Amino acid sequence: MPEPCRILVIHGPNLNLLGTREPDVYGRTTLSEIDASLAERAKELGCEIESFQSNHEGALIDRIQEAHSWADGILINPAGLTHTSVSLRDALAATALPVVEVHLSNIFRRETFRHHSHVSAIAVGVVSGFGPASYRLGLEALRRSLDATSE
Amino acid sequence: MPEPCRILVIHGPNLNLLGTREPDVYGRTTLSEIDASLAERAKELGCEIESFQSNHEGALIDRIQEAHSWADGILINPAGLTHTSVSLRDALAATALPVVEVHLSNIFRRETFRHHSHVSAIAVGVVSGFGPASYRLGLEALRRSLDATSE
Amino acid sequence: MPEPCRILVIHGPNLNLLGTREPDVYGRTTLSEIDASLAERAKELGCEIESFQSNHEGALIDRIQEAHSWADGILINPAGLTHTSVSLRDALAATALPVVEVHLSNIFRRETFRHHSHVSAIAVGVVSGFGPASYRLGLEALRRSLDATSE
Amino acid sequence: MPEPCRILVIHGPNLNLLGTREPDVYGRTTLSEIDASLAERAKELGCEIESFQSNHEGALIDRIQEAHSWADGILINPAGLTHTSVSLRDALAATALPVVEVHLSNIFRRETFRHHSHVSAIAVGVVSGFGPASYRLGLEALRRSLDATSE
Amino acid sequence: MPEPCRILVIHGPNLNLLGTREPDVYGRTTLSEIDASLAERAKELGCEIESFQSNHEGALIDRIQEAHSWADGILINPAGLTHTSVSLRDALAATALPVVEVHLSNIFRRETFRHHSHVSAIAVGVVSGFGPASYRLGLEALRRSLDATSE
Amino acid sequence: MPEPCRILVIHGPNLNLLGTREPDVYGRTTLSEIDASLAERAKELGCEIESFQSNHEGALIDRIQEAHSWADGILINPAGLTHTSVSLRDALAATALPVVEVHLSNIFRRETFRHHSHVSAIAVGVVSGFGPASYRLGLEALRRSLDATSE
Amino acid sequence: MPEPCRILVIHGPNLNLLGTREPDVYGRTTLSEIDASLAERAKELGCEIESFQSNHEGALIDRIQEAHSWADGILINPAGLTHTSVSLRDALAATALPVVEVHLSNIFRRETFRHHSHVSAIAVGVVSGFGPASYRLGLEALRRSLDATSE
Amino acid sequence: MPEPCRILVIHGPNLNLLGTREPDVYGRTTLSEIDASLAERAKELGCEIESFQSNHEGALIDRIQEAHSWADGILINPAGLTHTSVSLRDALAATALPVVEVHLSNIFRRETFRHHSHVSAIAVGVVSGFGPASYRLGLEALRRSLDATSE
Amino acid sequence: MPEPCRILVIHGPNLNLLGTREPDVYGRTTLSEIDASLAERAKELGCEIESFQSNHEGALIDRIQEAHSWADGILINPAGLTHTSVSLRDALAATALPVVEVHLSNIFRRETFRHHSHVSAIAVGVVSGFGPASYRLGLEALRRSLDATSE
Amino acid sequence: MPEPCRILVIHGPNLNLLGTREPDVYGRTTLSEIDASLAERAKELGCEIESFQSNHEGALIDRIQEAHSWADGILINPAGLTHTSVSLRDALAATALPVVEVHLSNIFRRETFRHHSHVSAIAVGVVSGFGPASYRLGLEALRRSLDATSE
Amino acid sequence: MPEPCRILVIHGPNLNLLGTREPDVYGRTTLSEIDASLAERAKELGCEIESFQSNHEGALIDRIQEAHSWADGILINPAGLTHTSVSLRDALAATALPVVEVHLSNIFRRETFRHHSHVSAIAVGVVSGFGPASYRLGLEALRRSLDATSE
Amino acid sequence: MPEPCRILVIHGPNLNLLGTREPDVYGRTTLSEIDASLAERAKELGCEIESFQSNHEGALIDRIQEAHSWADGILINPAGLTHTSVSLRDALAATALPVVEVHLSNIFRRETFRHHSHVSAIAVGVVSGFGPASYRLGLEALRRSLDATSE
Repeated sequence: MPEPCRILVIHGPNLNLLGTREPDVYGRTTLSEIDASLAERAKELGCEIESFQSNHEGALIDRIQEAHSWADGILINPAGLTHTSVSLRDALAATALPVVEVHLSNIFRRETFRHHSHVSAIAVGVVSGFGPASYRLGLEALRRSLDATSE
Repeated sequence: MPEPCRILVIHGPNLNLLGTREPDVYGRTTLSEIDASLAERAKELGCEIESFQSNHEGALIDRIQEAHSWADGILINPAGLTHTSVSLRDALAATALPVVEVHLSNIFRRETFRHHSHVSAIAVGVVSGFGPASYRLGLEALRRSLDATSE
Repeated sequence: MPEPCRILVIHGPNLNLLGTREPDVYGRTTLSEIDASLAERAKELGCEIESFQSNHEGALIDRIQEAHSWADGILINPAGLTHTSVSLRDALAATALPVVEVHLSNIFRRETFRHHSHVSAIAVGVVSGFGPASYRLGLEALRRSLDATSE
Repeated sequence: MPEPCRILVIHGPNLNLLGTREPDVYGRTTLSEIDASLAERAKELGCEIESFQSNHEGALIDRIQEAHSWADGILINPAGLTHTSVSLRDALAATALPVVEVHLSNIFRRETFRHHSHVSAIAVGVVSGFGPASYRLGLEALRRSLDATSE
Repeated sequence: MPEPCRILVIHGPNLNLLGTREPDVYGRTTLSEIDASLAERAKELGCEIESFQSNHEGALIDRIQEAHSWADGILINPAGLTHTSVSLRDALAATALPVVEVHLSNIFRRETFRHHSHVSAIAVGVVSGFGPASYRLGLEALRRSLDATSE
Repeated sequence: MPEPCRILVIHGPNLNLLGTREPDVYGRTTLSEIDASLAERAKELGCEIESFQSNHEGALIDRIQEAHSWADGILINPAGLTHTSVSLRDALAATALPVVEVHLSNIFRRETFRHHSHVSAIAVGVVSGFGPASYRLGLEALRRSLDATSE
Repeated sequence: MPEPCRILVIHGPNLNLLGTREPDVYGRTTLSEIDASLAERAKELGCEIESFQSNHEGALIDRIQEAHSWADGILINPAGLTHTSVSLRDALAATALPVVEVHLSNIFRRETFRHHSHVSAIAVGVVSGFGPASYRLGLEALRRSLDATSE
Repeated sequence: MPEPCRILVIHGPNLNLLGTREPDVYGRTTLSEIDASLAERAKELGCEIESFQSNHEGALIDRIQEAHSWADGILINPAGLTHTSVSLRDALAATALPVVEVHLSNIFRRETFRHHSHVSAIAVGVVSGFGPASYRLGLEALRRSLDATSE
Repeated sequence: MPEPCRILVIHGPNLNLLGTREPDVYGRTTLSEIDASLAERAKELGCEIESFQSNHEGALIDRIQEAHSWADGILINPAGLTHTSVSLRDALAATALPVVEVHLSNIFRRETFRHHSHVSAIAVGVVSGFGPASYRLGLEALRRSLDATSE
Repeated sequence: MPEPCRILVIHGPNLNLLGTREPDVYGRTTLSEIDASLAERAKELGCEIESFQSNHEGALIDRIQEAHSWADGILINPAGLTHTSVSLRDALAATALPVVEVHLSNIFRRETFRHHSHVSAIAVGVVSGFGPASYRLGLEALRRSLDATSE
Repeated sequence: MPEPCRILVIHGPNLNLLGTREPDVYGRTTLSEIDASLAERAKELGCEIESFQSNHEGALIDRIQEAHSWADGILINPAGLTHTSVSLRDALAATALPVVEVHLSNIFRRETFRHHSHVSAIAVGVVSGFGPASYRLGLEALRRSLDATSE
Repeated sequence: MPEPCRILVIHGPNLNLLGTREPDVYGRTTLSEIDASLAERAKELGCEIESFQSNHEGALIDRIQEAHSWADGILINPAGLTHTSVSLRDALAATALPVVEVHLSNIFRRETFRHHSHVSAIAVGVVSGFGPASYRLGLEALRRSLDATSE
């Protein structure tokens, strides 16, 4: 019997703009398209996802804390908070859930201050650079990680 | 015919206290006096301004994102977020609007951690150290910058 | 006659989880137990406390700003914001109230990025590493500090 | 009609030991099992893979150079060379092929000297931390990347 | 009665080339056009200006020293000396006059070695990034600064 | 039945001068007054203290080593040795006793070289900045720590 | 009954030149003389040694990997690879055998870039600076280390 | 009578690709064209050259070691090994021959990690940035250097 | 028809002393001998040179600026200004002429502060370490560079 | 005739605790057992040793200075002073005797601040990581070093 | 009437060896000769000196503390403690006496770790590099400093 | 017979202002008073001095170069050039004369960027912090240094 699989998907600040701003940098896919595509793939993997975007660090932390009571894992693109928020990291660690970190762009090809992530050290793994596909690959990785743990 | 000129003025955390706290450091002018004075000068320059202050990074980002649909430029004093917020920087960059960064005090005469700004690298320019006049000079610079672009 | 003593107690992000998550790291005492115990001790010291926890930096700053009008001192565990928030530091400094900084764990035994605090340089003093007792010791220190100033 | 898809899979130094040494660190899957599983997945994706492992930097570079004439992309786990080889990076860049970098372990949870990769800055993206699944996810990402380019 | 206002305007090395070299970087306005425009604006502000450009650090220092006997403030674009000359800084400090530092380009968007200024720490404030308008804004800031001091 | 509680109190170099030199920095309380006050408080807590001050690192280490055979904990103000002595740290660690580190002044408000302590990483916790009260708070923290361990 | 003792002796790049080049730096003993002397000493200690020198990092790694199946310990002078090869370090660690690192010269008296060794952190211990005797002392240390483990 | 002049020319990793990959970066001249042109110029200078390219650090070191017995000088473009190989440097130093280091591109205009060379400190001199002409200039410099030494 | 070739040769501070001071460091060739030899070689290459030495940074900049109107390229040994002068670099860049940087000694074998050059990043290339021959090789490189550009 | 061989053995701070504290870290051998074993081995090597331990840097320096008049070499485990004492280093250098530095544990596997030794740069060589055997190996190395010098 | 002038002269660790060890580095003058010469010069300046040398940091601090009750100034050569002792610095600062720091050798021409002094920042001034004359010049400077203060 | 003693005294940028600006920082003694006082003291020491001040680095270098032909030593206060001019250092070194470096203020009590001197490493010694007396002490040190060399 497969592992239960309820996933909280967290989108950090400014990701609500996806597809509408700087399309040559971030592509033309909108956040709701990403969520729809993720939900579909989740279904195939026997998972349910719940998506949340906010520009407010505090709101993201609140939501992550609640996940403790219902979710089996967290898929997160911390966006600009990746590099600056210890509180987000602490919230993720406190859930004791497996976390997969994703980035649309390859953060190692961008400015130096984007090379360091506070989240990576508490994540199962990281997927970076594949546009919207980063989310999908991250979801699959999380699914596998849950299966491995439940064996 | 002059360039249209609707400016979003953003005041970062703690700036609501201006004029009432630490007057020997930050002077006796209140934030609403600054806004009033700016509005007056804006009128002379053929501009309208809309002012927003918040202690919440997320609220500032929300407002900056909305500016994309109506504003021609952004005048921002990011206060303490200057040195710590990549998300604010990303929000400003995503608007694709010209940004002018201002500071009341000369941040290069203060503690070392205040010497670096995440915003400067995506701003047209920076005005730092002239008290409330920094806003006014910044507004004029922004006006000129809009005129130059529209030529 | 003793110094008046109204203390704002600030708990930073994720501290609402105390006692329910990672008990082997943070112990089994909940935040309301800490608050209750603090209130009791405060009474013995002739003080009243008002406690506030939030995962939102902005909400913490709002509350700290208000303290200016009624509190005599601030006892703060800035949690993950300790290391990242200049805005919190600026809010505390703007109150012109004595601030005591406390930490449950000894931050100097943890990851390197937790060794630096933006708050320490504007605090009267720091208490770090004694679990819930850090708050209690911090409160006593703050009480003494108020007495010393009023002499 | 789908994009042609011939992938060179490069395994860096010591990866020939997979499954036989330090199984609690690197798992029990052997390199040939990884290759077999990758080949199977490749087939599903309409790709062919050619795998190569060596402990010799020079041999890896020779093979990467040859890929220029037949491959459509490169999937590489540079292992210990990740952090030390500029020559490997230059060879990858010289092929002008899309490169996806994968790591079995999450390199950001290991020693500091493993946090920097010479390869990331010339890769499409990076997948790190999911054990053998990192390869599989990387292959899918590379397939998608080829499709996107050919559109 | 307005504050007397005699301003020394200092242009550092290579600024004599303005308008004739690299126009896409530095614009098409020549240094004499900048000086003329500044003189006009100065008149409106009740000021007189005296302009001096040199490629010789020593000549700039000589002139700055003389300003002590007649000027009320100094407006300076130190150009390449911004980042390298302690002697220039010492000369400015020795005049005990208010100094405003200006830059045509936004130095924070250029090479890292241009981000640090020896002058900023002894200046009233800094204006950076608005092309020739930086001078004009700087002059207005200096005028205001003189008025504020004389109150 | 309460935990036995014999505490070695260590005062580092120059603390013998307390109360007699630089009173505006270190206050007017002498070291023997601190010891007397500590002894009194210790009694209330069911503890005995033995105090030792020396300007000799070696003498401090000798005394700390002896504590292994009789003491239940160590309260130490390492003064100038805080930042420079690995040997003192090793001696403290070798006793395998709980150590509480105290400082009269808030070392984080002083010169940068005083911000790092070799002792903190092997201490239960740190109290810094409350003048003579730092000792008293540290003693109470140590008492609590002993109680917690004995449960 | 003594511990079995088959030792792989690894000589890194350029050590084949020993005794024939720069004799005032590296002495006049050749590598085969060192190997002969080591073999003799090994015999006295009840050990057999197998020696291998290569200028090829890959060849060294191949040989180290094979040692897993027959050797009881590794004595290595990594020469220039000491400071640059993570792959060599990983190969040594993967054997799970005790490793002793030796250097002919005292690397701490040479250029700064020679002060750091990637190997030391996975070695039992290090012998540096005694010329050919470093090997002999290292062999004795390795023998002792094997005895200690087998007790 | 002119100094004998047998020169070993060493081409580091990836230089075999010259002229066939990234022509806009490295030009359209192939390595054999460079070698042919060098041989011709060598003849004019009374020299013979022997050329060797490899992607294997070990093979390069082997060849450099052999040069000790027949060559009068070494002309080397270490390519990617410039920045990472201490072993190559040690091999060059061990030959006790004059070494001239050349680079096709100006390494100081490229990524920061290419600005440091392990070879420069043991070379007679360096020629960087003139494309294939760098080799030719380097050869002439080496010839002169041999003449100077033989005087 | 060959490219016109008028070259400004710039000698930085203290180079007027060549041949008369520290001959064991800088050799016995005087600056005028270098200039004479360069002029001769220039003639062979179809070039004219104009030489200028000064100990005054400003004088060097003045001369470099003038070169814009008549020269086809600049050959410069910036001497001590190599490491300290941003103004010199800016002057060279402003001429928009090809620049070749030369050094008599190999600056990478000297003190660490001599390893960085402000000029290299705007030069075509660098020749370092061949004594007076560095100038000659630099001149040839510049000639070739002009030819290449004019093709 | 063998070289005379009187060796001063210096044990730094806290080494008097060997065998009685933290046995899992430092083993169960006491310092007097180490001294006895060393004395025995010394006899076999034709040496006499004189051992001295102190927790006082000054006492160690006094003893090292006296060694000048009678000893032929110094074997030292500087313990915690390794990383902090320039005075100890100066005392050792002033004796002009050969010094061998030993450490029980492999200092390169411990905290970063233990990786640097002030003593290594003036020692003949270093033995680190073999427990009490480090002393014995160090003594043998010193004996050999004396023999080599006397040849 | 001249200022009273009783000077404590402090000689740090290893200075007792002056004149007897490493005479080519430290010269042939002994410490007692320096003291005698200083006493003589002191007399001419109307001063009395009291000299103290120790290899024990603690003993030096004890003596410095006592000086508070009788001395008018302190002349100190902290030797190896210059770079490592915060306690010595604190003792000197606590005396509130003018301190002059002297060094026999020019510490800026020696190893990098000798370039920083903990004492300089609390000294009136520093004399470095003139051998025994450094003391004499330091004494004169101290005398002048006392005169200046008493005016 | 005493050593001849002609001394060039060099005063760096802004020192012409001495006594007339910032008297609370630099005192009330003018530069000509310093020169007069130095000349008098020089006479007593059997020396002649020639003084030169300039704000132009180039002019200072010219003068230093000329000193080669007539002076026996150089006394220099490089002022702001201390920290920035490699050319000045090179000029001083090229004279091959003994150099003594002096500073009016104690540069180690000022901003961090003033703590490093390019001149110190080529000076005999340094005198810093005694106001005008620094020159006088420096002259005496130079005289002694000349005597010592001539013995």
